[in-house]
Amino acid sequence: MKMLIVYTYPNHQSLNYAFLEKVLKGSEENSKIKKIQVLDLYEEGFDPVLVFNAEKRRRDMHIEPAIEKYRKQITWADKVVFIYPIWWGRPPAMLMGYIDRLFASNFAYKDKIGLFPEGLLKGKSVVCISTMKGPTHYPRIWLNNAHKVLMRRALFSFVGIKKVKFFEFGNMESPKGNQERKLEEVYKYFKETSF
Amino acid sequence: MKMLIVYTYPNHQSLNYAFLEKVLKGSEENSKIKKIQVLDLYEEGFDPVLVFNAEKRRRDMHIEPAIEKYRKQITWADKVVFIYPIWWGRPPAMLMGYIDRLFASNFAYKDKIGLFPEGLLKGKSVVCISTMKGPTHYPRIWLNNAHKVLMRRALFSFVGIKKVKFFEFGNMESPKGNQERKLEEVYKYFKETSF
Repeated sequence: MKMLIVYTYPNHQSLNYAFLEKVLKGSEENSKIKKIQVLDLYEEGFDPVLVFNAEKRRRDMHIEPAIEKYRKQITWADKVVFIYPIWWGRPPAMLMGYIDRLFASNFAYKDKIGLFPEGLLKGKSVVCISTMKGPTHYPRIWLNNAHKVLMRRALFSFVGIKKVKFFEFGNMESPKGNQERKLEEVYKYFKETSF
Repeated sequence: MKMLIVYTYPNHQSLNYAFLEKVLKGSEENSKIKKIQVLDLYEEGFDPVLVFNAEKRRRDMHIEPAIEKYRKQITWADKVVFIYPIWWGRPPAMLMGYIDRLFASNFAYKDKIGLFPEGLLKGKSVVCISTMKGPTHYPRIWLNNAHKVLMRRALFSFVGIKKVKFFEFGNMESPKGNQERKLEEVYKYFKETSF
């Protein structure tokens, strides 16, 4: 199994970075995971702004040369792991823009008759590890699970990815958050996962 | 009433721009609307990437000099109108980043004891005009209204803005979309609105 980790946090002195380290540690001890690539969107200076106009056609987004290396990473990976904070109920603009630019028609999906397209990323699996300041039950009781719904249904299901696992951790700026236990949980998951 | 329009679309040859023109036309015929500013995020070259680290502290975001003019626009406005497409069930990264950077603690809200903060943008009203390729009922039946919930609950309510009106138009790339009727609906709303 080949694994791509997309890390989206403005700096490395952070709990998000500690999660990245646990993902790496667990994965390196997992004999099923053969290769790992890390894409650190902030460190990479990724430009999250999708532009299309008369010269730069929307229909050519799936072959845009400037982001070919990122498309290749996704194609290469069997499993994609996203690590990010929750801001305003959803991932940061940086990650949203990675999605806006990368998951283009004819790369990630293909339009066909009917409500849903043909997903072109079938067979891959995804893990989302997100940290929130607010309590864990806040998105469930107040936001209709908007974050998970957007990721699972509006995005991954749309491009054919059915296997999606969430670690959505709340109270992450508080001593109530059991951060050490959460870090351990993630480490163990990656040490043992087989898909 | 002073009105700020935040327009988020990569170009002007678009239905989104036609909506902007209708908002302007209606507002200019509305005697209650005294002043209008348009912020065209793409044309402005707005940088949607929120950065914080050891040198650039998160707690200083609300006084970041580089975006002072944008804070002033929000402070100035009684009504803020957002015009944007729906990509992957939510607004484009460009608009999400405007929110990530602008709606900072101690500018848009102030932490206090309890689950919710004190909103610092109380008294303002918001209108969101969004266009989707998919059908109008898609977000309602399949996405738990994630887009509206994120905007209304996770964002506006959090910063103290209770008056939020949505025009969420589906089928906007199809002849079934009744685009002309929707444009007219928006024009009339702005011609007559009083808050």
